[in-house]
Order: sequence, then structure tokens, then C-alpha cells
Amino acid sequence: MEQNIFHLQYALDTFYFLICGALVMWMAAGFSMLEAGLVRAKNTTEILTKNIALYSISCITYLACGYQIMYGGGYFLSGIETVDANAVLSEFANREEGFTGGAIYSKASDFFFQVVFVATAMSIVSGAVAERMKLWSFLAFTVVLTAFIYPMEGSWTWGGEAVFGWFTLADMGFSDFAGSGIVHLAGASAALAGVLLLGPRKGKYGANGRINAIPGANLPLATLGTFVLWMGWFGFNGGSVLKLGDINNSHSVAMVFLNTNAAAAGGAVAALILAKILFKKADLTMALNGALAGLVAITAEPSTPTALQATVFGVLGGLLVVLAIVSLDKLKIDDPVGAISVHGVVGFLGLLLVPITNGNASFSGQLIGATTIFAWVFITSLVVWFLLKVTIGIRVSEEEEYEGVDKSDCGLEAYPEFTRG
Amino acid sequence: MEQNIFHLQYALDTFYFLICGALVMWMAAGFSMLEAGLVRAKNTTEILTKNIALYSISCITYLACGYQIMYGGGYFLSGIETVDANAVLSEFANREEGFTGGAIYSKASDFFFQVVFVATAMSIVSGAVAERMKLWSFLAFTVVLTAFIYPMEGSWTWGGEAVFGWFTLADMGFSDFAGSGIVHLAGASAALAGVLLLGPRKGKYGANGRINAIPGANLPLATLGTFVLWMGWFGFNGGSVLKLGDINNSHSVAMVFLNTNAAAAGGAVAALILAKILFKKADLTMALNGALAGLVAITAEPSTPTALQATVFGVLGGLLVVLAIVSLDKLKIDDPVGAISVHGVVGFLGLLLVPITNGNASFSGQLIGATTIFAWVFITSLVVWFLLKVTIGIRVSEEEEYEGVDKSDCGLEAYPEFTRG
Amino acid sequence: MEQNIFHLQYALDTFYFLICGALVMWMAAGFSMLEAGLVRAKNTTEILTKNIALYSISCITYLACGYQIMYGGGYFLSGIETVDANAVLSEFANREEGFTGGAIYSKASDFFFQVVFVATAMSIVSGAVAERMKLWSFLAFTVVLTAFIYPMEGSWTWGGEAVFGWFTLADMGFSDFAGSGIVHLAGASAALAGVLLLGPRKGKYGANGRINAIPGANLPLATLGTFVLWMGWFGFNGGSVLKLGDINNSHSVAMVFLNTNAAAAGGAVAALILAKILFKKADLTMALNGALAGLVAITAEPSTPTALQATVFGVLGGLLVVLAIVSLDKLKIDDPVGAISVHGVVGFLGLLLVPITNGNASFSGQLIGATTIFAWVFITSLVVWFLLKVTIGIRVSEEEEYEGVDKSDCGLEAYPEFTRG
Repeated sequence: MEQNIFHLQYALDTFYFLICGALVMWMAAGFSMLEAGLVRAKNTTEILTKNIALYSISCITYLACGYQIMYGGGYFLSGIETVDANAVLSEFANREEGFTGGAIYSKASDFFFQVVFVATAMSIVSGAVAERMKLWSFLAFTVVLTAFIYPMEGSWTWGGEAVFGWFTLADMGFSDFAGSGIVHLAGASAALAGVLLLGPRKGKYGANGRINAIPGANLPLATLGTFVLWMGWFGFNGGSVLKLGDINNSHSVAMVFLNTNAAAAGGAVAALILAKILFKKADLTMALNGALAGLVAITAEPSTPTALQATVFGVLGGLLVVLAIVSLDKLKIDDPVGAISVHGVVGFLGLLLVPITNGNASFSGQLIGATTIFAWVFITSLVVWFLLKVTIGIRVSEEEEYEGVDKSDCGLEAYPEFTRG
Repeated sequence: MEQNIFHLQYALDTFYFLICGALVMWMAAGFSMLEAGLVRAKNTTEILTKNIALYSISCITYLACGYQIMYGGGYFLSGIETVDANAVLSEFANREEGFTGGAIYSKASDFFFQVVFVATAMSIVSGAVAERMKLWSFLAFTVVLTAFIYPMEGSWTWGGEAVFGWFTLADMGFSDFAGSGIVHLAGASAALAGVLLLGPRKGKYGANGRINAIPGANLPLATLGTFVLWMGWFGFNGGSVLKLGDINNSHSVAMVFLNTNAAAAGGAVAALILAKILFKKADLTMALNGALAGLVAITAEPSTPTALQATVFGVLGGLLVVLAIVSLDKLKIDDPVGAISVHGVVGFLGLLLVPITNGNASFSGQLIGATTIFAWVFITSLVVWFLLKVTIGIRVSEEEEYEGVDKSDCGLEAYPEFTRG
Repeated sequence: MEQNIFHLQYALDTFYFLICGALVMWMAAGFSMLEAGLVRAKNTTEILTKNIALYSISCITYLACGYQIMYGGGYFLSGIETVDANAVLSEFANREEGFTGGAIYSKASDFFFQVVFVATAMSIVSGAVAERMKLWSFLAFTVVLTAFIYPMEGSWTWGGEAVFGWFTLADMGFSDFAGSGIVHLAGASAALAGVLLLGPRKGKYGANGRINAIPGANLPLATLGTFVLWMGWFGFNGGSVLKLGDINNSHSVAMVFLNTNAAAAGGAVAALILAKILFKKADLTMALNGALAGLVAITAEPSTPTALQATVFGVLGGLLVVLAIVSLDKLKIDDPVGAISVHGVVGFLGLLLVPITNGNASFSGQLIGATTIFAWVFITSLVVWFLLKVTIGIRVSEEEEYEGVDKSDCGLEAYPEFTRG
């Protein structure tokens, strides 16, 4: 009969992983809608194409070799597609701390949960390079990032491997619960490298330091995308507890849900108020980015803060993202959707906040981890973007940019009946 | 080993609460899309801003003091953020009816589930006052409703406290399973108070009783919002069973899902047919409001009706909402999205339907409960709206209303490239 | 205490069904958005009305008699709305294979899961007949398909009944795990019958075999719909394992999630690349249909393939759907959203792929099953469409088609402020 309890715990923990994974997959829709809402109509079809393609490519490359690089195990998942119930039951029986010990669940559910994280990292890139990058160069970069760059840094962090066989981040006091650094800062680092080589959109920066606003074509879509990401983030952070099936772990999952929600709320309100003070208007796009910044800020450690702390961390993220977006524009780093600010700058903040509530992390460890992730992803991405630039090129022609990449890349307008000729 | 079963039941019930809560959070996206689709393009950014802000504010105020007022416990959740597994296990062992007794789950998951309900109540208001209210007055009202007005009536109903220490609604035979009254009628009462002080939109009512239709700018968005609400409602009603982890309770959750779906279906079909008869057209917005009306109608008691009864209750809701929308327009109560009809009039119907299938409720009890909720929320809201009106004002200027509140409040157009100059 | 384990397994399996069912319900939103995005603006309100109405009607007819025809049991669910916990516990105790034996769950959750499948089948039809069919004729057909045509073929397949008392499909070696044939091919067969009697849209096919592209009005909406369907499909296929609550079954659910995702990814990438080769453009709509084709292809058997096989099956689906869409246009079968290709042609492919990984199925069995489903649904649908054609008519007038069916059927424009007069 004890075995039946093991059966149930295994089933519950597997189901929990799958539901959380489905929520993270849903974030792909969130990024698509957010980005499609924030670009101009003439570049909308292309960014939608990029988003569905990058998600699909991520799933294939991570299956082919990414998971293997990050966590070991065979290529193409060989060996984790079947289960031997008796072996699993023995594993349960021998688990040291018993029922409240480590999680045991279907390895297939683990892959499913991990694969949607890769796609999230890559989604961050697509927004930042929007409206002027060649579609197929972007997709080529997608292959390299998801098959190699991300899995390598993932192997040093969640995978537990030593960095180039040299030092182990966890030993340094580095901790990143659900990926403020491993996923969000990483995605933003790749994006920054691309943006630097790509240059700003035509007309974005005028003479005498003038910055021209280029408004997004469809704000309801951007808002929808934000809500989708907010919802999906419950899976992103909630699933990162990795076990549901006992009292302490399920309470931990509950705190993660609560704190994730609180941080997003704090971020949205803080960004809205700061934007009102700075720009005299209730800037919806800042409120949206504020909510996302709150989410990124709490992601490095959503389980140990109190709900009040989580709200405050979200507020800090919301304030910082507004300042970061303004600052990047001053540096003429053109990021149409604010992805580098939201995921990069605030991802870094998230890492630094961890030691406040989690004694296992240290500020030095967080700095070392952040530096490692940034350096690795930024440098390798820069190399790949550069190689693409000198071979097939990464930027569309001036005329294509003026006409919109939808026509040149996709041959389809996103809203053929709406836009004013 | 028995303890392990307790671990599992706790984990399962906590997870159930969290998933249902995530679905209710998703309703915030539904209200946003529904309302954004039903207003004119020039007022869309503002209503999106209102929606993301009200959700965020609700989360903060309910954390700060709302939950405390409604259910006791410390401010800022103090004391429910940690769990003592041994204490929980004793609680299980001492549970009177044993395994099929009361639910025991993470208090953090309970807060998460409750907090999204507050936001739902407030979401109802934003639609009714759309297209002419000042954004910051609305947000000020949001603070008062979610921090005080809603939690007070919540304490008298789900909280079990006596109304002003006077009488207890449950003793009177009042029952409201998932909140047809406590959430929906309450939200609509606050909305009605606002609308009465605010007056109708310019041009809505002409001379000689003429009512001018002001069509929404984006019906796919409104339809999406309805589907999102429909889906989220499974969490809203399903989670209100409060326990999943035994045969009777899980069957009850299943009946709630089934009945919630059946009522929405009945409401949509009934409203579509009645609209066809009355207006000779298959009016999509009536079908959408019919589905929502079906959902509101079943919310007061989704567990005891048969599926057929649930369908019929939905049909009644769908018919009533069409008549209510027409009638409110005749009374010159201008509600751009029909929120007062859907949530208020049909919320009241929902309360009255409970005694038909639930012997613990009485018609007199339902009437007393409905009156208490309406009187409390309507009067306090009226006072707050009035104070806002005489201080910072609640209505935008005529020119701002003509130009659209997006420009004056948000400085951003929702669809800058689409609308005809 | 053993009983408590049964309580938990029952609760977990019931919850699993409900969550999967909610995800399938969500597919109704996906079809709505996909179809609304792919038609022209002037026909958008009507297709939204069709979608919310068909979902609602399906729920009512399947409750009234469809479930009864398909699985037996009383009309209007009589007898499955209550549960006797003691009887359930005895059922558990007597289960032959014990804990890892057949699933026992709330029958109400089973109905909820089944009812959303009916709606999926019907959703497939609405896209194919878009932009020229009379709304109320479509709704009349909906009643017949969901109350009778689908439940009959469902009774021969998942219901296990002999076809007209003659032969049993399962005995023939037919296997269709989650419904590539039973749901998708069936829906497409009904659609094909309708399209043949209805004819193509005005202006679609010109002189000399010229095929005119009629672009959809809102590609972000179509993309959103695809992501919604992708997410909902986890419930569609994942729930079709029918049991979660032991090690083998939960691992099987995990493999189904993983493979469903992999097939969609493979389909999207393959269709995108093939479209680029054929049309020199990265055709977003083909990528979307490719993802859906991958999903349809894996639906007949998502549990036995390896992840690599699932990806390859998805690739095959993605390639086939592009060719099918092109071929149907050459045959002047006008299907505005590609539904017949995605669900019919690829649904057939999905059935044929089953024997490769599932030894219980044979090619001959799959062919017999596919033929039975197609013949039954196509012929009965043709009769019903024909009767509708000769009585109330199925096609709108030329003038109505030119003006758009939104005006004639619904009296509401979907985007009144956006489209160019």
C-alpha cells in the first residue's frame, strides 16, 4: 500500500510539472502578442513569424542536443521516454529523507518543462531586434543560441557543472531560483549584442540627441501579451520549486504564486506612477513593462520573501525599468519593446535581491554568476551575430525597412484592410 | 505512512487552489479585452490602463489590509507565509470527520485565490464608467473599494461576521457559493453609484428619448475577452468548493465545472435568439453578454443543480440580460459594456435561484443578503464617488471626451495607424 | 487508510480530467481567433457569432442526447450527477489490477471532457464555410452534427459499439487515441460536404485557372488563435490518456504533452521552410497551419512515439498541409482557413501513422476506420446540407456577400472605425 502512495506522489508531481510547463509554453503567445502590439503595423507579420518559428526551433534544437548539453542524458531524449515502474518504486523506497525528500517524477515532464524555458530566453531577443533585422538571420541565430549558447550556461547553473571545468557557481554562493539571470539576463545579453551590431531603426534618433517615439500599432495586443506573460509566469516560477507533493513544498509553491503576483502588481503600479511623474501621462506601455519588470525581479527568488517584500521588490523593478528604458534611449541603444531593460537590467537587479531573503546566496556570488552569464552569452552572441553580419547580413535594406519587413520577408500584410495607404 | 497521505491531500488541495486562482487571475485579461473591444478606439488605451492598474492596486490593498478585514489574520499576511508541517499533520490527525472532513491547505494559496476575487469585483466597475471618467479618480476609488468596501461585505458573508455586529447573514438563510452577490452584484452596485453621479456619454441619448448606438471598436477582442472570462470562471466557481481531495468534494468540483459551462452555453444561445427576435439581427454583443449572464446566474450555486437546471438557469440569465440592457438604456443609465445588467441584475437573479436547488438557502435570506450587499456597497460607493466629484472631479472635460480620454489621460493612441483621421 | 488513497486517486484523476477539459474548452477561443483573423473584416462579426454559438449549441445538444448516443447512460445526464462514495470505494477495492488498473473518476468530469470534444469537431466546419454561408443554416447544421452525426460515429469508435451492429472497428485493428479521425477528419468531412454544395467565394477563382489570394484581415489574431489551439491541445491529447494517477499513466501523460509539443514544432518549421521554397516568402499563415497540422498528425497516437518520431510526424503533417492547401485550391474547393487540409487530409495521415509505433493498430484497420468515419459523416452531412439548401437556403445573396455577412446577418461591424470606407 505504501507503494500506492508513491504512485500518487509521482503522478501529482508529474502533473504539476506538466501544467506549469503548459503555462510557460503559453508565454510564447504572450511574447508574440506583446511584441506584435509594440511594433508598427508594417512589421507585424514578420515578428509573429519570428515568434512562432523561434519557439518551434527551440523545441527541436533543445531536443536534438540542448538538453543533453545542459543536463546530460542521451541525444533526442533517448532513455527518458520509457519508465520502469518497479525501478521508480525502489527509488522512492530508498529516498533518504523519505516522503518529504527529493522529487521523483517523469523525466519526460522534466524535459517538457525545461524546453519551454529555452524558448522564453530566445523570445526576449526577438523584440529587441524588431523592425530591421532579416528574418532568416534571426532564425539562424536562434539555432545557435538554443542548441548551444543557452545550454552551456544552463549547464553551469542549473546543470551544476563547473564553468569550463574551473569553478562551480553554486559553491561561490550563486542562486537563481527560476532564472532572472539564467533565462532573462541571458536572453537580454544576446539581444544587446544583436542590437549593437544592428544599429537603431531609421528615424529613431534625430539630430541633436532628439529621440523620436515610434508608437506601437496595437496596444490591446500588447496588454493581452502582458497578461498572458503574467499568467504564464505562475508556471515559470511555480514549477521551479520542482516538487509539489508534500506539505513544505506545496506551501512553497503557493508562496511562489503569491509572490510572483505581488511583484508584478508592485511593478505595474510603480512604473505607472513614475511615468506619470516624469512624463505627465499614465503611460500604458510603461505600466506593462513595469508589471513584467516586477516579474523578472522576483524570478531569482520567489519563495523566500514575504508578500510585502515581494511587492517591494516588484516596485524596485518597476521603477528601474522606466529609468533603464529612458537611459538606453539616451545611449541610442534602440530596443523597440524595452526587452533589454525589462529582462537584462531588471534581471540583474533580481539576482542582487536574492541574498536579502535567501541566506544561501551571497552578493559576491550573485555578481560572479551575473558576470559569468553576461560575459558568456554576450561574447558568444556577438561572435555569432558578427559572423552572420559578414556572411548573409543581418539588416534589411533601407528600402525594405521603409516599406516594412512584412512585405520583403513574409509577403503578407498583418492588417491589409486597416492601415492608411 | 498515514502522514504521507495527509501530505498528499494537503499538496493536492493547495495545487487545486493555485490553479483555480491562476484561472481567476486570467479573468483580469478577460475583462480588459472585453471592455477594450466594446469602447471606441479613442478610449481604448485608457481602459487598458485602468484594467491593469486596478488589478495591481487590488493585489496591494488586499494584501495591506483587505484580507485582514475580511478574514482576520495579520496585516501584510504576517503569520501565513510560513508553515509548520508537524502542526499541519496534527491538524489532519485531529480532523473530526477524518479524511472527508474540512480542507486543509496552504494559507498562502487561500490568499492567492481570494485576492483575485477582489480584482474581479473591481473589474466590473471599469466597464460601466468607461469613456468619460477621469483615470486617477477611478484609481482612487479602486483603493477604497478593494481596501475597505468589498472586504467589509466580504466579512459579513464569506467571513461569517455579523453585519455591524447585528445579525449574521448565514443564519438568515443566505447562501452565495461563489459570489453572484458578494462579487458580481457588489461590483455592479459600485458601478451604478458611479454611473449615476457621472452621467451618460455625450451623444448617447438624443432628443425625444432617442438612444444612439455607440458601437465598440473591436469585436474580436470583445469575443476573446468573453472566452477568457468563460475559461477563468471554471476557476472562479470550481475553486469555491474549497476542497478537492476526496470523492465527494472532487465530484462536486466536477459538477461545478460542468454546470458553469452549461449555464454559459444556455445564456449565449438564449440571448442570441431573443436578440434575433427583438432586433432581427444575430447581435454578437448580446450573445457575449448572454454567456456572461449565464455564468453570473449560476455562480451563486453551481454545485447543486443538475446540468439541465444549470442550462435553464443560464437561459434565464441570458434572457434577462437582454431585457436589462434595453431597460437601462430607457432609464438613460449609460453603461457602455452592459456591466450593470450582466453582473448586477443577473447577479440578483442568481441569488434568487439558489433556494430552488439548495435547501440551506431561503428566498427571504437571499433577499436580505442581496439588500445588505447592495445597500452597503451602493451607499458607501456613492459617498466616495461624491467626495471625488467635489474634490478632484470624476468626469473629463467635454473637449477631452470628444477627443478621447486616451490623449488626455495616457498620451498614447491604442491604434495609431488604423483609425480614420 | 487504504480508502484514503482511493479518495486521493479519484480526486487527482477527476481534477486531471477537469483541467484537460478546461484546456479543450479554450480551443473554442482558439478556433474563433484563428478564423476571425483569416477572414476579411466584413465577415468577422459573423464568424465570431458562429463560433460562440456553435460551442454553446454543442454543449446543449450533447447534454440533451449526444452523450447518451455515444456512451449510453440517461438523457440530460440523469444518473451521473450524483456520486455514492461508498460504492466508488468498493469499485476501487474490486479493481482487478489494483492501483495501476483502470481509472475511476467522477462521471461528471468525463462528460465535461467529452462535451468540449464535440465542439472542437464542429469548430472545424465554421472556418471552411466562412464568408458566404447563411448564419442560421449553419446553426441548424450544428444541431444535427452535434446531436446525432458525431455521436453516432463516436459510438462506433470510442463508444465501442459495432457499426450498424455489423463490425467493430477496434476488432479490425483501428486505433485513434485522441481523435485525428474521430474528431478532426470527421469535422473536415462535414466541412467538405458543405463546401461542395456551397461553392467558392465570389472572386476566389478567376478565368483560366487563376486563383486569387484573399488575405485575412488580422494576422495577429490568427497567430493568437494558433497558440491558443496549441496550448489547448495539451488538454485534448493529454486528457485522452484517461488516467493520471499511477506511475505508468502519469509518465504516459507526460510523453503525450512532450510529443504534442514536438509535433507542432516540427509542423511549423517544415511548413515555413516548404512555403519559403515554393513561394519565396516566409508565409506566416502556412507556418500557423503547419503547427496545427503537426498537432493533428500526432493526435491519433501521441503516447507511443519517441520525441524524435513525434517531431518527424509533425514535419510530415506540416509538409502535407502546404501541398494540400495548394491542391484544394487547384480543385476549386474554397476553404478560407485551410480547415479541410489541416484537419481532414492531415487527420487521415495521422491515422495512417499509428501502426508505425503502436502494435495494436494495423494499416488496414486504420483505412477501414478512416473510410467509415469519412463515409458516415460526409454522406449524412451532405444530406443535411442539401435539405437546408433546398429549404431555407445555405448561401447568402450576391449582394450580401459583397457587402459582407456582418451587415446582413449580425447588423454589427467588427471594426467599425478601422476599415477604409
